[in-house]
Amino acid sequence: MLRKIVILGAGKSTSYMLDYLLEKSVEENLHLTICDLLPETLPDKIKKHKACSILKLDIFNEADRSNAIKASDIVISMLPAHLHIIVAKDCIAHKKHLVTASYVSDQIQALDTQAKENGLIFMNEIGLDPGIDHMSAMQAIDQIREKGGKMILFESFTGGLVAPESDNNLWNYKFTWNPRNVVLAGQGGAAMFFQEGTYKYIPYHKLFRRTEFLDVEGYGKFEVYANRDSLKYREAYGLQNALTLYRGTMRRVGFSKAWNMFVQMGMTDDSYTIEHSEGMSYREFANLFLPYSPTDSVELKMRHYLKIDQDDIMWDKLKELNLFDANKKIFLKNATPAQVLQKILEDSWTLGDQDKDMIVMYHKFGYKLNGKKEQIDSNMVVLGEDRTHTAMAKTVGLPVAIATLFILNKKITTPGVQIPIKKEVYGPILEELKKFGIHFKEYKVPYLGYNPDFVSGQ
Amino acid sequence: MLRKIVILGAGKSTSYMLDYLLEKSVEENLHLTICDLLPETLPDKIKKHKACSILKLDIFNEADRSNAIKASDIVISMLPAHLHIIVAKDCIAHKKHLVTASYVSDQIQALDTQAKENGLIFMNEIGLDPGIDHMSAMQAIDQIREKGGKMILFESFTGGLVAPESDNNLWNYKFTWNPRNVVLAGQGGAAMFFQEGTYKYIPYHKLFRRTEFLDVEGYGKFEVYANRDSLKYREAYGLQNALTLYRGTMRRVGFSKAWNMFVQMGMTDDSYTIEHSEGMSYREFANLFLPYSPTDSVELKMRHYLKIDQDDIMWDKLKELNLFDANKKIFLKNATPAQVLQKILEDSWTLGDQDKDMIVMYHKFGYKLNGKKEQIDSNMVVLGEDRTHTAMAKTVGLPVAIATLFILNKKITTPGVQIPIKKEVYGPILEELKKFGIHFKEYKVPYLGYNPDFVSGQ
Repeated sequence: MLRKIVILGAGKSTSYMLDYLLEKSVEENLHLTICDLLPETLPDKIKKHKACSILKLDIFNEADRSNAIKASDIVISMLPAHLHIIVAKDCIAHKKHLVTASYVSDQIQALDTQAKENGLIFMNEIGLDPGIDHMSAMQAIDQIREKGGKMILFESFTGGLVAPESDNNLWNYKFTWNPRNVVLAGQGGAAMFFQEGTYKYIPYHKLFRRTEFLDVEGYGKFEVYANRDSLKYREAYGLQNALTLYRGTMRRVGFSKAWNMFVQMGMTDDSYTIEHSEGMSYREFANLFLPYSPTDSVELKMRHYLKIDQDDIMWDKLKELNLFDANKKIFLKNATPAQVLQKILEDSWTLGDQDKDMIVMYHKFGYKLNGKKEQIDSNMVVLGEDRTHTAMAKTVGLPVAIATLFILNKKITTPGVQIPIKKEVYGPILEELKKFGIHFKEYKVPYLGYNPDFVSGQ
Repeated sequence: MLRKIVILGAGKSTSYMLDYLLEKSVEENLHLTICDLLPETLPDKIKKHKACSILKLDIFNEADRSNAIKASDIVISMLPAHLHIIVAKDCIAHKKHLVTASYVSDQIQALDTQAKENGLIFMNEIGLDPGIDHMSAMQAIDQIREKGGKMILFESFTGGLVAPESDNNLWNYKFTWNPRNVVLAGQGGAAMFFQEGTYKYIPYHKLFRRTEFLDVEGYGKFEVYANRDSLKYREAYGLQNALTLYRGTMRRVGFSKAWNMFVQMGMTDDSYTIEHSEGMSYREFANLFLPYSPTDSVELKMRHYLKIDQDDIMWDKLKELNLFDANKKIFLKNATPAQVLQKILEDSWTLGDQDKDMIVMYHKFGYKLNGKKEQIDSNMVVLGEDRTHTAMAKTVGLPVAIATLFILNKKITTPGVQIPIKKEVYGPILEELKKFGIHFKEYKVPYLGYNPDFVSGQ
């Protein structure tokens, strides 16, 4: 019997997901209905595929949405996260499973009982981060526990970066995902984490100066800055007794120190709009945040304000962005500093036609076994193939597609609102992901983390 | 005929106000009804004064409040600012004038038409800042305009400080007003001002590093950091064409640089509560914001984090506050960093029994007259007499008392919701304030402000 998958939203992270499901369509007897407000933008290969129907759908049109969902066996929502709830309610009404790559909202969580009563699986956070991070972390943690180990440290870092072959600017960075999220990263409150049993707090304006470093075999050195809430999955992962919990974002070394210049200037602020932003030059924008002087240049004022020496590469990073260009104009009305900065960065950091992206993930697992402290580090690197088949689309889309198929095939059976932290879920999905080059390398390392035993203080 | 003044709220800023009105009670035929939730705390001198009735009043008791207001000729509200609106509505209902030292809220402003229709004067912002700043600035600005001058620059600064004879700590600062406002000063968005025709923005974490300096004859050097919105009174003062508008807060030189240490650490953050704050030591509090280390001391970590040299006085300022004391405990449950910092500062910065406070205000008026740029600087210093008769109580309370009497005596007659920027209002009040030592010294200075003509750039 034909199994019908309804896909809501066909944005840029869906290429691998659609390829995977269409590839399996004959063998697995699948039919896809792809619903989007602008389905014309889908490639012909997809639109003309015989296992595929294309539906122009406004998600706010209740009848159309309800009909589409009613006709399916399972629903994948790739819509913006805040729209999942209206889909989820329809899924309850029509008794359909649901898969999303987004964080579980309180509203979605509230549907847990109803989902369970109807035997429905609402699988969320099954993309990259959240997604692959949950699955790979829980697999390692469960294995440590099966050996009798007791978790004392968990650190987890992810970065969406540019592939080494396309890494050709001074920032070692290009936008491979939502630029706005990159500009606003870390805002909204102090970052909080847990180190050797003590809480630690970092205010936003210090976040990018409190980095740690990581080596990834074959890819060199990376740095990490803390995510806002490292304690988020403490209960879900069963890490209530761990002494160290730290989650962060990976960048190439030097990015954070340079990014901190924007933070210090106030250019990442999204809380107010600039007077007369439209028509302002990049140079005038920079000068907004510097003291007035009738004689000194914007350049010298900024060097002095940020204490940048003559021979500091930081300076070249700013120049590379044309920040002092008096001819380049901002064509944004009533823009916030963050919006203007995003515009300036997009000029320089947009992926070129030939550019490839890269996903890096790094975990540290510290544990006590037979009275000894041990540590396993693991990491994953995924490279993009081209501008459509990015590493980001691959690592977000494949887990979604695989989970969908496994739910249809009853490999995943436990109902309820969930994230992929159960062996039933992560086991087969991680196994399948390996076929696509998505896998982790594990390294047994001495427990150096924050262990007083190993430090020779003088 | 006896004129009845109802005073709502008898907090710490009312000493001079009550003294002034009671002193005038015979000659001016005044009777005061002082309403407070805890009137017992008033001094006997006031309670037993024959021109004075004391009423225990809960402001939320509608009948009592309404009766008190109905029986008056004019109402002074010294309540917390957000409560003025319920008083103001009663004043409309019973057709009574109203005087407050607080900022005009949108709610109060909305009563303007009703006040005018009933011939009522709702005088607000008639304390120190706002209050004396408005009056002194508008007097100077009006005088410049009468001569034919055109305003091009206005800067205005106020500070509540400790008097020189009581200035005996390394911070040259003690709390003379609401400590919480001091801890949170500058938060909630970037500071914005206008310099030589260009907008300037300073993010919070840079605010205390962008200070300017001022000299006050006989009192030495002060520094200024920018207030959040320097453009607030642009229209009210008629300064739409001025090229420079800057308002700020005055401190003794060195305060802001030291205060910035707290900002950088994240100790002034009021947006989250600290886990297990109760019972935490001052030292543990400091360590929350520093990286974990099994060997390095809190002291060394902080010196390194804030780049404080061995011989830097900044360090002594922190030590003076006992910030590294492992025995001093925080007895606050679920406290924010800002609340804990306030508690630590109150230990050191509370005014002693013999301590006196000081108010300093400084204006700069730049203008063009006969094609030439000119500048007048003016300043005011007021010293407190004792812990009750503070300079703060004097400069906040006397303008309120004087305005109240002048409204009763029909020296001030224009009805409506207003602030003291009209000559009819500021003229007689400033004149009367002089009798109490509240006056400005004016200095004609070269227009140095931000004038390209005077700067020799090389």
